[in-house]
Amino acid sequence: MSAAEAALLIEDGMTVGISGFGGAGDAKAVPLALVERARQHPLKIDLVTGASLGRGLDGLMSEAGLLARRMPFQGDPVLRRAINEGQVMFVDQHLSELIEQIRHGQLKAPDVAVIEAVAITEQGHIVPTSSVGNSASFAAFARQVIVELNLACSPHMEGLHDIYIPETRPDRAPIPLVRPDDRIGAPAIAIDPAKIAAIVICDTPETALPILPPDEETQAIADHLIAFFEQEVEAGRLGASLAPLQVGVGSIANAVMHGLVDAPFNNLVQYSEVLQDSTFALFDAGKLLFASGCSITLSGECGQRVFGNLEKYKDRLVLRPQEISNHPEVARRLGVIGINTALEFDIYGNVNSTHVGGTRMMNGIGGSGDFARSAHLSIFVTKSIAKGGAISSVVPMAGHVDHTEHDVDILVTEQGLADLRGLAPRERARVVIDNCVHPDYRSALNAYFEAACARGGHTPHLIERALEWHINLARHGQMLAR
Amino acid sequence: MSAAEAALLIEDGMTVGISGFGGAGDAKAVPLALVERARQHPLKIDLVTGASLGRGLDGLMSEAGLLARRMPFQGDPVLRRAINEGQVMFVDQHLSELIEQIRHGQLKAPDVAVIEAVAITEQGHIVPTSSVGNSASFAAFARQVIVELNLACSPHMEGLHDIYIPETRPDRAPIPLVRPDDRIGAPAIAIDPAKIAAIVICDTPETALPILPPDEETQAIADHLIAFFEQEVEAGRLGASLAPLQVGVGSIANAVMHGLVDAPFNNLVQYSEVLQDSTFALFDAGKLLFASGCSITLSGECGQRVFGNLEKYKDRLVLRPQEISNHPEVARRLGVIGINTALEFDIYGNVNSTHVGGTRMMNGIGGSGDFARSAHLSIFVTKSIAKGGAISSVVPMAGHVDHTEHDVDILVTEQGLADLRGLAPRERARVVIDNCVHPDYRSALNAYFEAACARGGHTPHLIERALEWHINLARHGQMLAR
Repeated sequence: MSAAEAALLIEDGMTVGISGFGGAGDAKAVPLALVERARQHPLKIDLVTGASLGRGLDGLMSEAGLLARRMPFQGDPVLRRAINEGQVMFVDQHLSELIEQIRHGQLKAPDVAVIEAVAITEQGHIVPTSSVGNSASFAAFARQVIVELNLACSPHMEGLHDIYIPETRPDRAPIPLVRPDDRIGAPAIAIDPAKIAAIVICDTPETALPILPPDEETQAIADHLIAFFEQEVEAGRLGASLAPLQVGVGSIANAVMHGLVDAPFNNLVQYSEVLQDSTFALFDAGKLLFASGCSITLSGECGQRVFGNLEKYKDRLVLRPQEISNHPEVARRLGVIGINTALEFDIYGNVNSTHVGGTRMMNGIGGSGDFARSAHLSIFVTKSIAKGGAISSVVPMAGHVDHTEHDVDILVTEQGLADLRGLAPRERARVVIDNCVHPDYRSALNAYFEAACARGGHTPHLIERALEWHINLARHGQMLAR
Repeated sequence: MSAAEAALLIEDGMTVGISGFGGAGDAKAVPLALVERARQHPLKIDLVTGASLGRGLDGLMSEAGLLARRMPFQGDPVLRRAINEGQVMFVDQHLSELIEQIRHGQLKAPDVAVIEAVAITEQGHIVPTSSVGNSASFAAFARQVIVELNLACSPHMEGLHDIYIPETRPDRAPIPLVRPDDRIGAPAIAIDPAKIAAIVICDTPETALPILPPDEETQAIADHLIAFFEQEVEAGRLGASLAPLQVGVGSIANAVMHGLVDAPFNNLVQYSEVLQDSTFALFDAGKLLFASGCSITLSGECGQRVFGNLEKYKDRLVLRPQEISNHPEVARRLGVIGINTALEFDIYGNVNSTHVGGTRMMNGIGGSGDFARSAHLSIFVTKSIAKGGAISSVVPMAGHVDHTEHDVDILVTEQGLADLRGLAPRERARVVIDNCVHPDYRSALNAYFEAACARGGHTPHLIERALEWHINLARHGQMLAR
């Protein structure tokens, strides 16, 4: 069927599940055809995906007025604007939880699922491409499935995936994964072939992820973290292979992971969500034994190298449904080291991953909470300042909290590392201010903290000034008057 | 050994692990002897427990200057004051996580553990009393163990417990618990008998928990919740036995649970932390099949009835280590309905469980996060106003966040119930204001929300006024001028 014909299966008011996670493995042809159609004949859908879509799809759909509701994540500047203007209802969710809520009837299941595939097996099972995300469950729960066979994908992708879906409760068994390289499921998505309403052929290369190269600050963050890991190994709290590593999406986390290429740790293992360039740099450096994820999202150069030579990496890789890659049960059992990017954090270690100025959505919490809540070590990294110094990433009180003090162990900026384990709030503030804050903001934070302590409280605050920096930013474009 | 002699095993600067959870099963003699000693000869310890201690022990230890550091929970007015004055460093932790951090060397293991027991078996194993809490792991990790044999405890307690301890990572197996009534461990705490440094005999009855009777507001909260459960059953999202119930500690949650006595649900099962009077009211009403917890904390009358007739209830009860009763792996597998008490929440569904006015610690997060993060339904209940109406429990922005919007499904006050599932922040605010807010505060919250929406943002706020109600409270003793 043509993409335009297949798109006609999608009706106004439907919930549509589209494959895609971190800009990898997203259905490419049918969503564009849907955009074309919406430009002619207005229609609205609720869109659910794995995570963000590539190729500006979210923006195009938003501009075409197609999106009534969007979950569980996005990362598109055009859609972001529509969300912040209240035009699209965005539900910002833990990435491991969307499917759990659909499975148990708490969210509407997709009417139609659109799944990118590299093949359909002789049994009629769907082989996904560079991400699994929520595709397997979308296909299982949707009434109709549109398969996009993308000829541009490497046929070697077959065999890369491990599809395991937890049972509907009650009577759910433990997830049998006890090592990051365990395969516990099937290599393809098994569905009733009668549900496949359309097969659309396309030949569209994967989106390349724009990834910023490491810079002085990200290198400094990596160095602080590596020095910390060395201390942990020396103290016997970590082995020389550390623990299964989870690394968040984006340039800072990717650069930190790159830093491990030159670090004295070997036989590393990754149990993560998105596998980025750094995973393959570590493979090529002989540092990494195995990587488990739900998506492979690469820059242009790295994408050609990896997908052009997939058989070289394939036996050291597995892609799982995001429900499994991000499952708190597994993260806690394995004892992952979770390294995620903060937008801002406060002196007490509450982390904001999502909101600028306390109100404006950036991308969403993504998988950071899935890991941070259950990790052996929950680490958040960020540069200490943003916008040329107008913004301090460390503030008296976070303007929005995505990860509470209870779930945050280690904070790192280019200035240094704060180890918050076992500390009370007053002690946490001391190490955060001394280690993480940019010098331009240190005396102001010290003054705030000391005045707050004089007033008292377990978590001392001058409540009337707690959000002053955010107010300044909104009014004057900078957190502190200079 | 006498309690005073045993207390001499505890030296200045030590970390001491004392049994006790929710005022149940706490060591009673040695801590008091330690208080006596500290009054004569100053000494400081770091105190770790299961959760709160009974009999005012935390307050007595605090007044004697004994506590340098306290974790993971407390509920004592005297200690609370010392914490808020910065005299005791309190580390407010998820109750399932303290032991994980000790096991992996991230927190110091107890030098000495003091464990209340009803018996020591022929093998030298310790049989705990009315709570397990962290006792099994304290005994395993401490260098020395003091056993307090409490003759006042019912000998029928033997056989009540199920001691299962997860392996040290890596190479940890799944927790094999798949039904709330599964027994997966041993009936007593197995340790090397050579570590038992003292056995102290005492004969001290358990603390009775002061529990407020249900009132009009708690009855209304229960009614709203029961009506909601009925809808969920009708929609096929819950069966007539609902799902394993977790209910937080305290009068409101207990009263809500009591409400189920007259509700049209049968064959209920509890997978909870503290079992309170309501558990036994439901047993006696023939509504409850089984209850799993880590502690039994009862009022005086109910305590006599239950512990005086323990054989009547015993085959329908199990007490587990709090690491298992509260384990996110198990809570998510079973799909518990988590009902916990909020101190305040904001219009977007961020919940504060711990801090008054954004700064002053009440008790601690306790197990609420363990459950809320992984529950099938994460429900928070509170009365809509406090202090005779000076305080609204629903505010524009929470002064402290313990449970983020991502982890909160349902909010209930005596005014009504807000179902937040699948809603974006602007939609959440609408249902919270319409359903949960006290009429005295509704128009002010509406005005705030509408002005914030006009300004924009995914989570609209007037950032310069977001904490105004907390500032008013601090300055004028009430959130809104009347």
